[in-house]
Amino acid sequence: MADFILHPQLDRDCHVLGSFPLSLLLLLDDSRYPWFILVPQRQGIREIHHLSGADQQQLLRESTALALAMETAFSPDKLNIAALGNIVPQLHVHHIARFISDPAWPAPVWGELPAEPYALESRQRVTEKIVSQLSDPSTAF
Amino acid sequence: MADFILHPQLDRDCHVLGSFPLSLLLLLDDSRYPWFILVPQRQGIREIHHLSGADQQQLLRESTALALAMETAFSPDKLNIAALGNIVPQLHVHHIARFISDPAWPAPVWGELPAEPYALESRQRVTEKIVSQLSDPSTAF
Repeated sequence: MADFILHPQLDRDCHVLGSFPLSLLLLLDDSRYPWFILVPQRQGIREIHHLSGADQQQLLRESTALALAMETAFSPDKLNIAALGNIVPQLHVHHIARFISDPAWPAPVWGELPAEPYALESRQRVTEKIVSQLSDPSTAF
Repeated sequence: MADFILHPQLDRDCHVLGSFPLSLLLLLDDSRYPWFILVPQRQGIREIHHLSGADQQQLLRESTALALAMETAFSPDKLNIAALGNIVPQLHVHHIARFISDPAWPAPVWGELPAEPYALESRQRVTEKIVSQLSDPSTAF
């Protein structure tokens, strides 16, 4: 992973919360949704199926661990999980906790109004919620 | 899989092309994008992480086989892979071949104008392209 560099747009829009064995875990700075992003630390990869088989499996494990943690931490009505990457050409997988009461429901969240950055305190609260779930020894976080 | 029933909205909006060991392969009837959907044949499941570990692995294999086939068949600029399900509560995973020249680029495709149903001939052409790729003995299609 020595040659991995987080894409500047992800670096600008997100906070790095930590890393799984393969992926960085980011929090998108948009307080409207608990919105996390996994970024496999492999330089130059744009599609999931371009990862090695072992890395694909690891990404699945990390995605499942994150989904379970989000479910416990936020009790969402639905998770939205997506690898789009039309704009940012570094493979990244969105994990968004959706609520019937959220501003975009039931539409997807992309392109909905400008982001509303977190106040420091609420960002710390969301971070704590997810990190405490992921710190369970059964995840490799 | 005896108790699996495809959700009526997926049934209405899509054509069933075949099935992998776990998932049905659907073609969305929208000629603007080569847009396929995998539906794991497990009744009552709404989230990927609610599948058993073995089913999650199988879904990943099927997704990768489909992604590879789409890449070869359509040479897209980007694949968009997403499990949203805010409206249709049966787990289904979108696989969309995106082109810089397509009508929604670089935005996501959901909610963009009404679908443009295929003419029979072009639907047959798209179906043939993907099925011939998937018929390779290395996939279990």
